[in-house]
Amino acid sequence: MTEQITLYTAKICPFAHRVELALAEAKVGFTRFEIDLSNKPEWYAPKVNPASKVPAIAYGGPQVSPDLPSPDSVKLAESLILVEFIADLQPESTLLPKDPVQRAKARFFIDAVSTKFLPAYMGPVARGTPFEPLWDALEQLQALLPADKTYALGDEYTAADIAITPFLARMEVWLTNDIGAYKEGEGKKASEYFFAGDRFARLVKYWQAIKARESFKQTFDADYIKQKYSARFAPLRAQAQAAAVAAAA
Amino acid sequence: MTEQITLYTAKICPFAHRVELALAEAKVGFTRFEIDLSNKPEWYAPKVNPASKVPAIAYGGPQVSPDLPSPDSVKLAESLILVEFIADLQPESTLLPKDPVQRAKARFFIDAVSTKFLPAYMGPVARGTPFEPLWDALEQLQALLPADKTYALGDEYTAADIAITPFLARMEVWLTNDIGAYKEGEGKKASEYFFAGDRFARLVKYWQAIKARESFKQTFDADYIKQKYSARFAPLRAQAQAAAVAAAA
Repeated sequence: MTEQITLYTAKICPFAHRVELALAEAKVGFTRFEIDLSNKPEWYAPKVNPASKVPAIAYGGPQVSPDLPSPDSVKLAESLILVEFIADLQPESTLLPKDPVQRAKARFFIDAVSTKFLPAYMGPVARGTPFEPLWDALEQLQALLPADKTYALGDEYTAADIAITPFLARMEVWLTNDIGAYKEGEGKKASEYFFAGDRFARLVKYWQAIKARESFKQTFDADYIKQKYSARFAPLRAQAQAAAVAAAA
Repeated sequence: MTEQITLYTAKICPFAHRVELALAEAKVGFTRFEIDLSNKPEWYAPKVNPASKVPAIAYGGPQVSPDLPSPDSVKLAESLILVEFIADLQPESTLLPKDPVQRAKARFFIDAVSTKFLPAYMGPVARGTPFEPLWDALEQLQALLPADKTYALGDEYTAADIAITPFLARMEVWLTNDIGAYKEGEGKKASEYFFAGDRFARLVKYWQAIKARESFKQTFDADYIKQKYSARFAPLRAQAQAAAVAAAA
């Protein structure tokens, strides 16, 4: 039996979502505490995470109310570190394979998500920049997927898949709802290109398998993300278009 | 007994040095192959590491000459992934602690090396920029060291310490030999500030403990680094100074 886990998280945040997926997959019980990222409680940075980000975990110590964190629990942060922590707590889960070579391959896929995909991910939605760098990065990830297995490492859903799941989920929301700093209609066009074209057939099949999992359904609220992303990125479209008009004048 | 390990490495490279330290600490036998980074063998990228970087490992497969890599070995890359791979191969080593909380703390220290220290590390030596961002980053790492233990996690030398060792070693060489794009004499001054001042007393004590280890002595050739760094960074000083004169004119 592991000690108590309190997860400080936010539904909007893809990094925090990774940890919720890992906890769901490993079937670890935990106390969930939603942090309002636009109005963080004043105790959060001093008592839980000095970096003032989610996700963070308070592990062990006495059972306390999450908004009164105990100095006797261990405080841990950084999404990928927390996913590995949960895998280490539950070695019988399939979050990480047992074989050292397979573990290295999982970490290589995760590293590609961090260093290739994430730098390209926000360009179109947040700045209205071209989609091609994002497609390039997704193509590199797709090339790491085995042709004849479901997930990144085989037929088990692991930490490698968890690393990218929250980002593909949010990308689907902003693409299919045409939310972003890009011009009106470009999201829908890109959505058709990604989901219905040939170029990403392997990756889309992978994504459908992920979406069908219970852990995903339990941890993702597409309507909530749509509403929040509309509020956040709709003003950016107007700004990006005004800037383009000013530049052309 | 593990399978054969061939390490593709370069004495100059701090990332490759991490893996040599891990292999020495875990007492794993391996075949070492030096890659000339200024003139890489043409087979290296297609047959060992598509990213064409060191370090890389060929694991398992038949015993072959390193310059004739077998398609039957597994090829792995990225220094931190390789250090964890060696820890996974040799769980009885002390490269990573057994306790999940301690493992998470090791990874948190490594993440701080990657995200705080490395971005600040090359500024003074390669571009002649001020030392303060480097000191700030080192101070943040120092704050993670326990006051009453030798290493980052306690009295064992682990993957956390391995992550930073090669960089502190090279920094000592360029500081104490006044090699860098900064003005002549600034390296020596910074060296005194770092090694003899109060600000970094804890970190310097940590560094002395690391330097005394057999694994370090076996894997670091200060004279070689001094010679290579002189050749690489001495021209940068002249360039940086010419640029400063031009800017002032």
